[in-house]
Amino acid sequence: MVSTALLTDRYELTMLQAALADGTGERACTFEVFGRRLPEGRRYGVVAGTARVLDAVRDFTFDPDLLTSLRGVLDERTLDWLAAYRFTGSIEGYAEGELWFPGSPILTVTGTFAQAVVLETVVLSILNHDCAIAAAASRMAQAAGDRPLIEMGSRRTHEQAAVAASRAAYLAGFTSTSNLQAGASYAIPTSGTSAHAFTLLHDTEAEAFRAQVAALGAGTTLLVDTYDITAGIATAVEVAGPALGAVRIDSGDLAVLAVQAREQLDSLGATGTRIVVSGDLDEYALAALRAAPVDGYGVGTSLVTGSGAPTAGLVYKLVEVEGRPVAKRSTSKVTQGGRKTAVRRHRPTGTATDEVLGTGFTPPREPGDRPLQVPLVVDGERAGDLPDLPASREHLRRALVTLPWDGLALSKGEPAIPTTVLASEREVAR
Amino acid sequence: MVSTALLTDRYELTMLQAALADGTGERACTFEVFGRRLPEGRRYGVVAGTARVLDAVRDFTFDPDLLTSLRGVLDERTLDWLAAYRFTGSIEGYAEGELWFPGSPILTVTGTFAQAVVLETVVLSILNHDCAIAAAASRMAQAAGDRPLIEMGSRRTHEQAAVAASRAAYLAGFTSTSNLQAGASYAIPTSGTSAHAFTLLHDTEAEAFRAQVAALGAGTTLLVDTYDITAGIATAVEVAGPALGAVRIDSGDLAVLAVQAREQLDSLGATGTRIVVSGDLDEYALAALRAAPVDGYGVGTSLVTGSGAPTAGLVYKLVEVEGRPVAKRSTSKVTQGGRKTAVRRHRPTGTATDEVLGTGFTPPREPGDRPLQVPLVVDGERAGDLPDLPASREHLRRALVTLPWDGLALSKGEPAIPTTVLASEREVAR
Repeated sequence: MVSTALLTDRYELTMLQAALADGTGERACTFEVFGRRLPEGRRYGVVAGTARVLDAVRDFTFDPDLLTSLRGVLDERTLDWLAAYRFTGSIEGYAEGELWFPGSPILTVTGTFAQAVVLETVVLSILNHDCAIAAAASRMAQAAGDRPLIEMGSRRTHEQAAVAASRAAYLAGFTSTSNLQAGASYAIPTSGTSAHAFTLLHDTEAEAFRAQVAALGAGTTLLVDTYDITAGIATAVEVAGPALGAVRIDSGDLAVLAVQAREQLDSLGATGTRIVVSGDLDEYALAALRAAPVDGYGVGTSLVTGSGAPTAGLVYKLVEVEGRPVAKRSTSKVTQGGRKTAVRRHRPTGTATDEVLGTGFTPPREPGDRPLQVPLVVDGERAGDLPDLPASREHLRRALVTLPWDGLALSKGEPAIPTTVLASEREVAR
Repeated sequence: MVSTALLTDRYELTMLQAALADGTGERACTFEVFGRRLPEGRRYGVVAGTARVLDAVRDFTFDPDLLTSLRGVLDERTLDWLAAYRFTGSIEGYAEGELWFPGSPILTVTGTFAQAVVLETVVLSILNHDCAIAAAASRMAQAAGDRPLIEMGSRRTHEQAAVAASRAAYLAGFTSTSNLQAGASYAIPTSGTSAHAFTLLHDTEAEAFRAQVAALGAGTTLLVDTYDITAGIATAVEVAGPALGAVRIDSGDLAVLAVQAREQLDSLGATGTRIVVSGDLDEYALAALRAAPVDGYGVGTSLVTGSGAPTAGLVYKLVEVEGRPVAKRSTSKVTQGGRKTAVRRHRPTGTATDEVLGTGFTPPREPGDRPLQVPLVVDGERAGDLPDLPASREHLRRALVTLPWDGLALSKGEPAIPTTVLASEREVAR
């Protein structure tokens, strides 16, 4: 186990020291993770990273070496307290793969202030990253429809973020990843084609293709745009025969090139050879390729950078102290104090209409309401096994079906459903 | 040691398998890392991550467990080859803290194809992340001038990316980081204030301030915008006395609030109390605060997301095979084949004028030329100790001084100096 305890902002621990000294550290507190708003123009968020958060909380422990590195920052009392630290509070939250909207309490951490405050940074790091990638990936998966999506962005992001990004992309509907660590850690299918370097290494394109087919079989994907695409496709079929699995085109006007490639492949009898395209694709480019004869996509940079929204903008806010709601001065209703209980309201047809948040109470149940929070940790112990990654993937797929039709539009707009915050049981949603 | 070997795209290893099978894997190759262009409108790039790259290359080894995870993907011959893998080629590159421009060969990897191709993904992951953050950080440091900059973005990015981002920010001129792991791993000064949660935890703001001052001394920084800023500052000085270290304001129109806070602090006799501001600051917001009475900044989200350019866009390209230049069909001069040797040309005044790249040869030396590449690994062994982080920080500071004056402008523009690619020794730069 590698401790996650230093993946923390210094002020968490100095606040801890001050709170231990004056006794307030033992006050019962509730912290909530939520987004005040969705990234600009996005219509929904996707919860991802819950499983990683729970592992990080489990591994949030301070061994002697680690405490030594904090000597000089913290006093002895605080160091002793940290030496014994193990999270013994409770956590509930939205399931991985659930949708979120402004104010949705996607994670609720209860415990003493001291117990809960130290987790802020690592919890937010994980959720802000994974939710950002999953949201972008979900839009791409919608744009790609039934066509397979290969995640291949590892080289464009931090090497460990790449592994988490692969996981989030798979959760949100990608088919496979190029990242071997993600394959090993999360049992995500891995795939890959080849690089221009492999063709350039050989004296001719034909020799490169022969080597690849000899090693990986005719079902492989040959990269045909190193020199001339038409010549490349002719050589590919000549070398591999009409049973060639696929060709990949990584540059140029992909919509035009795909049509030409399809005609050429068909004329060569390679009617079953698929066409995979890549090269600076994002959800808009994928949507623009809907009518093109493309059989699969490789997506890299835009996925791992959240396609313009590299962080989900989630915050970890203290909302209750000893049962009393607390909040910073603010004009926003979704940031008001008090522990939120969330349900998603639906029409009889199953279409979602509202994210309803009760502040300090559970909203009166109506037909079609679906409670959104599930227990994750109870008194320091896991509440049970989490759904596995395929189950979370299915959860998201089903949740997306409930959105009003314009909730899946790629264009900038309002959240797909409004958030209704009920301040007391007497208020009625909408 | 944690192996970095699976932080790799599957196709690197399937290309390896094909190249081992047909013998081309043993061909002597040169790969170069460069950016075809700078992120949109940026005038310079910053090299960061070199030290992390060399550690990743050292740790790129396959133990039996790891090979087991690749069974089914690769054949026995390839698995045996990987079991013995240790990079025995050579690496040279730009020093950490050096500037880069389109085409600059910031890292050059030589070795057999098999030896060098497998490093592509992890090398690019590290450099694309760290260079992106350092470039954004450098612009922020320019905008902040002499005022201290605290890096506090950990919560808005992947938990491990956060540690690397702290390092890159410090390299580029930030003063300290909130991230404790970065402090422990890289000896970066850590700092921090407190969160709104700490005030909300207490029954009154005064009690929170008293607790913080009791624990951390009057030199601490009190967060004064939880409720009302004017009341918060009055309470802060009342509790801590005029020796109060600093107040932090995290919201609102910071330019206006800083003036009011300064007047109020001075009127209370707290003339030495500093004003630290934070809250969605980026390089433009920092520049806009130049005239405000601000003594320090906390920067988070925009730093860790590269302020609009979350990846540096660097590629790892095969440029020579057995001494022969190779390149994909392209219209760009900076992507032509052949190993590049780089010098930066300067006027007698010391102002940089050109990034000069010789393709396959060293550009004829002129007065004021500075060679840019240094040996990093020779035949698998480190070429020597790398400069430490403070030295790299100083390297960048000096390099920035050489830029033409408009090279430091924050507005969008062309690269600060042009890249001149010499295709033969007979060509002369400009």
